[in-house]
Amino acid sequence: MTHEGAPATGGLIVNCLPLTEEERRRFRQAAPEMVQEFTGDDAHRGDMVWPVTVPESLRPLAAAVIGNVDPDTLADYARLQWLQTFSAGADPYLSSPDLAPEVAVCNAAGVYGRPVAEMMIAMMWTLMKRIPDYVRNQSAGAWRDEGSVSSPAGRRALVIGTGDIGSHVAVLARSAGMATTGVRRDPRRSADGVDEMAGFDRLDDLLPRADVVFLAVPSAPGTRHLMDARRLALLKPGVYVINGGRGDAVDCLALAAALHGGRLAGAGLDVTEPEPLPEGHPLWREPRCLITPHVGGGNHLAGTGEAVIAVALDNLRRYAEGRPLLHRLGRDHR
Amino acid sequence: MTHEGAPATGGLIVNCLPLTEEERRRFRQAAPEMVQEFTGDDAHRGDMVWPVTVPESLRPLAAAVIGNVDPDTLADYARLQWLQTFSAGADPYLSSPDLAPEVAVCNAAGVYGRPVAEMMIAMMWTLMKRIPDYVRNQSAGAWRDEGSVSSPAGRRALVIGTGDIGSHVAVLARSAGMATTGVRRDPRRSADGVDEMAGFDRLDDLLPRADVVFLAVPSAPGTRHLMDARRLALLKPGVYVINGGRGDAVDCLALAAALHGGRLAGAGLDVTEPEPLPEGHPLWREPRCLITPHVGGGNHLAGTGEAVIAVALDNLRRYAEGRPLLHRLGRDHR
Repeated sequence: MTHEGAPATGGLIVNCLPLTEEERRRFRQAAPEMVQEFTGDDAHRGDMVWPVTVPESLRPLAAAVIGNVDPDTLADYARLQWLQTFSAGADPYLSSPDLAPEVAVCNAAGVYGRPVAEMMIAMMWTLMKRIPDYVRNQSAGAWRDEGSVSSPAGRRALVIGTGDIGSHVAVLARSAGMATTGVRRDPRRSADGVDEMAGFDRLDDLLPRADVVFLAVPSAPGTRHLMDARRLALLKPGVYVINGGRGDAVDCLALAAALHGGRLAGAGLDVTEPEPLPEGHPLWREPRCLITPHVGGGNHLAGTGEAVIAVALDNLRRYAEGRPLLHRLGRDHR
Repeated sequence: MTHEGAPATGGLIVNCLPLTEEERRRFRQAAPEMVQEFTGDDAHRGDMVWPVTVPESLRPLAAAVIGNVDPDTLADYARLQWLQTFSAGADPYLSSPDLAPEVAVCNAAGVYGRPVAEMMIAMMWTLMKRIPDYVRNQSAGAWRDEGSVSSPAGRRALVIGTGDIGSHVAVLARSAGMATTGVRRDPRRSADGVDEMAGFDRLDDLLPRADVVFLAVPSAPGTRHLMDARRLALLKPGVYVINGGRGDAVDCLALAAALHGGRLAGAGLDVTEPEPLPEGHPLWREPRCLITPHVGGGNHLAGTGEAVIAVALDNLRRYAEGRPLLHRLGRDHR
């Protein structure tokens, strides 16, 4: 945490946000003593994912970057103290050997919880009511009853990962009539919407009780293939699995096999491993798998971009004033 | 209400429910003095809609029928006092000239409210998150971002018809973060989930304020084409219209035109006019229209059949004991 205390002088702030002139003025005011280079273009404001370009000449000078820079270029940022992402996920930065351990990596926490959780809840409703089947029937002009449906009422949601996204999932699941169990690293910490909290050590005991499994864990060594063939086999027949966190939390080939075998009622994946899901992957052909292309976050929901800008502006003010940054992610376990 | 007071003696009860032997025993016990003919077959218990067959010879003898008999055969039931439907809708019976006004028509009220409301809420989430587009992309193996999505949070639901279905819609909409306005014949009556209630005379003032319009009105002369071209034009751009009540509450051709013109964000129809929606109807081709083939009710949700049987058993006991029947529908306005 080299920067805490007085900020380094002479360092450049590279701001890649697609800001209007008025917003740039506010960012300049937030750090009046520092030089700030704006590389964003507000013509891209409406893009679902904001593009980030930092000219090569600026990289060695940058003390701070606001933007998801290309992780392959991190070695160029020799003077970097602070990286502020537009995203919730920051895995490539946290695990990069090119980024010194003391560089502060901060994400846009609190911005994507509700949008991603909504996508996950929408997937649950869609799958429970067999709507993908009806969409396909509609494409064929077929008015055909697809049989029985499910309901969240009185069922149990197991929410694995109860950070910002998972907690919002729990709140929405409970409001749809579900009982909610949360799984997190430290089960002594509560989370909104979660009726009972457990540690990861109890996961195998909880899976057989779940009716819907929601995955909202970040990508980390401990969460890779958290839902593997063995754990999928612990589920009751007729369960739904929804992943809105990171794609590699689910072994997608094992999931395809479980769906194909008919034991799972359905799966909803806004994230996959790998991304994009390659042509010919068996999940593309599973009628009970709903795939969306990692669109739960980004700027898909109106107002998200403004919230990202507000997080960045707040942190810039903190950086300029030498106060602790918010939403700084731990890098110790890498 | 000829039957209230002492039931007619000698009248036959024709029970078309697909009952097990044990359940038949309970129905016999409910009306021990009466002759009860069971025409249902429990092999059909799992059917999405229970078939009803009444032999021609039984019809003139029937004082009571439990089952949605063919409306074209109503003239055969000369001695009928009570008709108990399996369904929530009972329009063909209520409006039939072949059924004497004093015949009690009772529906399975309270059984379908939650299932139909859930289908309507599922449609809202599905449309808001552009899931039909992603299902179609998936069929083509395409990983493609379809752009911005919507959220129910902070938006206003206008629930037209606040009976059993509409009230459940309002509860679920509110739990998803929406403000709810209800429209019903008598606005002095409140309904669960509805923040503010208005009469139909205020509908035109309320439509321009709505973000999502939910229709849950029964089919009746006053509700036919309630949402016509004029009323659709009163909506703000970007509104969703969801119909789970009766198909003719929406002018489906006007709706297709409104969708095609791009002002509506989407429509979800579990009911259409006519049903099935005919081949070549323009709604089949509207990508922002989600069509399901009247599957919100029926036995699509586990436990619904048992709830219908419980309603019928309760009413049979009342009939046998000469007590007022429950869920009797008004026929005066026909």
